[in-house]
Amino acid sequence: MSFNKTALQSKIDNKTKPPGSLGRLEEIALQIGGIQETITPTISHPHILVFAADHGIAITGLVNPYPQAVTAQMVLNFIRGGAAINVFCRQHQIQLRVIDAGVNADFENIHSKDFIHAKISLGTKNYLEEPAMRYDEVNDAIQKGKEIVASVCSSGCNCIGFGEMGIGNTSSAALIMSAITRIPIERCAGKGTGVNEEQLRIKIETLQKVFDKYISKNNSSVSPADVLRIFGGFEIAMMVGAYQEAAKQKMVIVVDGFISTSALLIAEALNPGTINYCIFAHTSGERGHQAMLQYLRAKPLLNLEMRLGEGTGAALAIPIIQSAVHFVEEMASFESAGVSNKQ
Amino acid sequence: MSFNKTALQSKIDNKTKPPGSLGRLEEIALQIGGIQETITPTISHPHILVFAADHGIAITGLVNPYPQAVTAQMVLNFIRGGAAINVFCRQHQIQLRVIDAGVNADFENIHSKDFIHAKISLGTKNYLEEPAMRYDEVNDAIQKGKEIVASVCSSGCNCIGFGEMGIGNTSSAALIMSAITRIPIERCAGKGTGVNEEQLRIKIETLQKVFDKYISKNNSSVSPADVLRIFGGFEIAMMVGAYQEAAKQKMVIVVDGFISTSALLIAEALNPGTINYCIFAHTSGERGHQAMLQYLRAKPLLNLEMRLGEGTGAALAIPIIQSAVHFVEEMASFESAGVSNKQ
Repeated sequence: MSFNKTALQSKIDNKTKPPGSLGRLEEIALQIGGIQETITPTISHPHILVFAADHGIAITGLVNPYPQAVTAQMVLNFIRGGAAINVFCRQHQIQLRVIDAGVNADFENIHSKDFIHAKISLGTKNYLEEPAMRYDEVNDAIQKGKEIVASVCSSGCNCIGFGEMGIGNTSSAALIMSAITRIPIERCAGKGTGVNEEQLRIKIETLQKVFDKYISKNNSSVSPADVLRIFGGFEIAMMVGAYQEAAKQKMVIVVDGFISTSALLIAEALNPGTINYCIFAHTSGERGHQAMLQYLRAKPLLNLEMRLGEGTGAALAIPIIQSAVHFVEEMASFESAGVSNKQ
Repeated sequence: MSFNKTALQSKIDNKTKPPGSLGRLEEIALQIGGIQETITPTISHPHILVFAADHGIAITGLVNPYPQAVTAQMVLNFIRGGAAINVFCRQHQIQLRVIDAGVNADFENIHSKDFIHAKISLGTKNYLEEPAMRYDEVNDAIQKGKEIVASVCSSGCNCIGFGEMGIGNTSSAALIMSAITRIPIERCAGKGTGVNEEQLRIKIETLQKVFDKYISKNNSSVSPADVLRIFGGFEIAMMVGAYQEAAKQKMVIVVDGFISTSALLIAEALNPGTINYCIFAHTSGERGHQAMLQYLRAKPLLNLEMRLGEGTGAALAIPIIQSAVHFVEEMASFESAGVSNKQ
């Protein structure tokens, strides 16, 4: 079956509304129709996967106001249902899965169907001293991300969003962004969870030092895979694999905020076209996200000035994506409703 | 009980997230707390009321590409559940009520609990010739709007949005906007359901003629109530009463698009402070809406380039408003979750 875009467009135009009056919802319906190669697009069993991991840099306290222990504490909060992403997923019947991609804590005693053990290591190395990951670690993380998405897909899910938790991970995302887009580090690094002006100055200074340590001025020798390996973290690498598999499975991918989008920068560099499966949920309040979205020519659905991560932006956008599918499925046509069309 | 804003702010800041990281949702939670005078805000039984009416001007064909009959046809479509607003209300369990405020058709045989008979007349007069409404008509319409909202409120609803249907009503809205804000008519009138460039030129020319007929250059003698009476329509007048009553009842009011906001311009002029109960759902794609929102210093939640009316923007914003209430209610605090706060 090949997708007939004109047929879906005309189906949309025959709904009882002025042509184009549902704006972005019509674009989304057409995009999903294209992904699913059908004029009856659907959203089935939407999931959000939250990948959690720790970052060697966080122990220095140079880039983050919260202690590293918060990553593990928040994972427990996710499992108990007390975090923002839990609230929004419950509200919208989105299935939430939390993945230990490499948290610096022992979760062996945790048994929950919503928790996935995929620990690569107890956090990445500090990239001030050495690359965040070894080659085998980054490959394992990508592979694990693919496997997790393949398993979710086989359960009947065709729409997936990726969130993350990891103290220090806006720094990894800023380094990746700068390396891939060549935008200077001071425009990529932002306040993250809330550093003050002086802390931000130190964060930028630190990240500039890290950047200069690994990336030469002409930058040509560092591949996207190496950018990922050097700057980390495990949750970002696992998301890269997750994006790759989701695109391969022709799923609708809901892109969350700054860190999730940095993983997409790598996935798109490795597999151009991944972005065609992506719907951008929101513009994060984190400085840098807007420029990242512009680099990808992405047009996000929401701007609620949120900067929490966890997939919270994706969770709030999924109902809008569902609305796009529902109007195509459920609205009457001019003919069926006996409504006169334009004179 | 008096509302303690500081207590609600500190409750929000103690949730397991960086301060301010839920952006607009935090502002909305604080606004609803203020409206309800509580640190545990709620959204109960949200409703959308769609007011439908016909406009004398529509018979001339000077301002509208669709025939007047479409208003009545769409009312039947609403009753049968086939319009966009039906789809979105079903998706989000929003109670939808359709009101015949003055459609040029006989609905006496329609008996449905979701349909309210409140017909003032079979459409307004053509304002090219005479004012759209008589004094008694505009007063009746406002009164009816108040009664309908009072009844909905007494059923346990504390969150309400207003939508509309009426071929020709972007013209009424543009005239009201220009009279209240003093923004020239050519910046208030837009393409509505989709006139082409030549039709838009004729629409603007027509509306300028109407404006000049009733409003002198200095404009000082025409009260907001007269602006409403002269330019119509019945659905807009009924919405004015609806806004007034909803504010009086301390309901959360979800403001939809161009026409609904024009009714708020009148309601706010008559009862300053009505706007404090309003959450602005979206920026419509209709030219003029953005300037109208700026005049009101409103900051809408969504911009999905929609321009359909019917309350569709409000319906898509209500889940976001619910998220704002849910996070305050359901998220764990740093203490309860055992999560470390900033260092």
